[in-house]
Amino acid sequence: MADILEPLTWTCPVPLRDQERVVMGHGGGGKLSSELIEHLFLPAFGSQALAAAPRDSAVLDAGSTRLAFTTDSYVVQPLFFPGGCIGDLAVNGTVNDLAMSGAVPLALSTGFILEEGLQLEVLGRVAEAMGRAAKRAGVRLVTGDTKVVGHGSADGLYVNTSGVGIVAAGVELSPDAARPGDRVVLSGPIGEHGVAIMSVREGVEFGTRVDSDSAPLTELVLAMLAACPGGTGAGIRAMRDPTRGGLAGSLCEIAEASGVGVRLDEAAVPVPDAVEAACAFLGLDPLHVANEGKLVAFVDPTVVGDVVAAMRANELGRQACVIGTVTDEHPGMVVGRTAFGATRVIDRPLGEQLPRIC
Amino acid sequence: MADILEPLTWTCPVPLRDQERVVMGHGGGGKLSSELIEHLFLPAFGSQALAAAPRDSAVLDAGSTRLAFTTDSYVVQPLFFPGGCIGDLAVNGTVNDLAMSGAVPLALSTGFILEEGLQLEVLGRVAEAMGRAAKRAGVRLVTGDTKVVGHGSADGLYVNTSGVGIVAAGVELSPDAARPGDRVVLSGPIGEHGVAIMSVREGVEFGTRVDSDSAPLTELVLAMLAACPGGTGAGIRAMRDPTRGGLAGSLCEIAEASGVGVRLDEAAVPVPDAVEAACAFLGLDPLHVANEGKLVAFVDPTVVGDVVAAMRANELGRQACVIGTVTDEHPGMVVGRTAFGATRVIDRPLGEQLPRIC
Repeated sequence: MADILEPLTWTCPVPLRDQERVVMGHGGGGKLSSELIEHLFLPAFGSQALAAAPRDSAVLDAGSTRLAFTTDSYVVQPLFFPGGCIGDLAVNGTVNDLAMSGAVPLALSTGFILEEGLQLEVLGRVAEAMGRAAKRAGVRLVTGDTKVVGHGSADGLYVNTSGVGIVAAGVELSPDAARPGDRVVLSGPIGEHGVAIMSVREGVEFGTRVDSDSAPLTELVLAMLAACPGGTGAGIRAMRDPTRGGLAGSLCEIAEASGVGVRLDEAAVPVPDAVEAACAFLGLDPLHVANEGKLVAFVDPTVVGDVVAAMRANELGRQACVIGTVTDEHPGMVVGRTAFGATRVIDRPLGEQLPRIC
Repeated sequence: MADILEPLTWTCPVPLRDQERVVMGHGGGGKLSSELIEHLFLPAFGSQALAAAPRDSAVLDAGSTRLAFTTDSYVVQPLFFPGGCIGDLAVNGTVNDLAMSGAVPLALSTGFILEEGLQLEVLGRVAEAMGRAAKRAGVRLVTGDTKVVGHGSADGLYVNTSGVGIVAAGVELSPDAARPGDRVVLSGPIGEHGVAIMSVREGVEFGTRVDSDSAPLTELVLAMLAACPGGTGAGIRAMRDPTRGGLAGSLCEIAEASGVGVRLDEAAVPVPDAVEAACAFLGLDPLHVANEGKLVAFVDPTVVGDVVAAMRANELGRQACVIGTVTDEHPGMVVGRTAFGATRVIDRPLGEQLPRIC
């Protein structure tokens, strides 16, 4: 056991950009987050860490059952925003992390950290939103925990949802499985969640109101898997929900994990007018803005037609489209072809573009 | 989906002691915590809530596998204390919640909320303690998440660990299964974790240094189950690890859930001298002080001898002893017989005796 009188034993094996302290970007889902995992958590956890390609959820053998398991803490500010609140976000986000492994959610846990003085009515509204979102996603809230910290030690409330789900036999999705020739499929327009948060936080509106796209993607994923030969997704290599870090972050992660290049046709990526306007106003790239109800999939060209057709038949995939191709050139990199025919390297953000987005 | 412009719909169905705001006691594991679950979370979660007797972990059917699932957030202050730190506490606490359902831990998740400006070295030491504790408990850290909040919005760091485990066929432990005639068994001396925290927080020492008892109980539980006829714990009705709320809280919860009375022989409960001294100094009842490496079990009298013998053969159960009996008198209540022969009703604390204890 650790002993308070022991000398400090931990030393960072690789300098974290010469930083000695946590910065906001370490929680942003970008390069700094990856470095924290690679250079701090994995070495410190030692032999007990499951070192693997970064996944939205781990897939484990539990007896004869294939179990997906994931966790996310939610610290979004403000707690309520256009189109949702921290409660439905926490349910949908964790359900979607399970769905990205092809899992049907079985149960969620709810771990609250409450600030002393929080109005019970606010907590009640958040919990009610969680119950409604869980019902929509077909998942139960089976176990929970509540801690209270003093006034000033949390911004109202934080909530962690962890989730377990079942992965059907034959379903194999992995971020390191993309191959040259695969098509990149996006389920719908990007940037709505991030812009919804920004609009309330900054008190600005961008033409029409933008609502968060927070939604559970399980049904959409199951329809995609069923559209493939054998019905278990043969030909779908990898899926990811582009939350923190945006679409650019998800594409870069899969390109890196699979050791392939991605050619992105930027003109094919649907960006709502209001998102475009907000990003122009704020100096942001829509490719870096968070989504909470979208997915990107890497799909064999022989099945991509059937997969996109199945997606378009689902409420949450009506605007599904092919946005790019996997190449064996420039492995680990994403290269965009802009609407004007120019090409550019699309990098993921270093740190946090919009802090406290989820 | 919740809409920010919708009228507030949630109203508390039962007044929570006429309170409108969260108080520290709502996180204390006592009556206020129970009321928050019963009157706020369960009604607000609606049909998706798993309403059941309060358990340390939920047990679910996942295909042909019986899965235990639990979550806990850790907000202990200070982060490092005699005998441990928030890291090993977070691993052992969640492993023990699984063990109380008779489960062998399969995997843990790690969800960090970090405060901007936290020294990376502190985070590294906490993570290293988690890796070591996970190794000792035989469990892997398979999935994680990191969020960062601004300076002043968290006290260094908070960490959530959720866990999944496998419950063997035939193992049936439930807090509502205690029966009159059962013996109450305690695995060892009480109060060490709470006193260890208090000693550093208050800067006082109580004779000898008291170390937290933070430890993983899986092996002890498996030895107890194996000691019963059939090897799957037949005759052990319920187990609980007396953390927040202390031994009194655990006994009261099982008495209430099972609708039975408990007669506690207070003189039989081992209390270390330094814990006794600290509690006298601070005006606390050792029965209310938190433990992080102890369990209390309700056991059929025909097997209790074998169970206690098996416990004493385990490092963490050397001082195991029978401390009471279940009766059909005063259902839902715990009555103590003091060392002087007097009797008293032992209630669980209303709220938080020692805030931020875990």
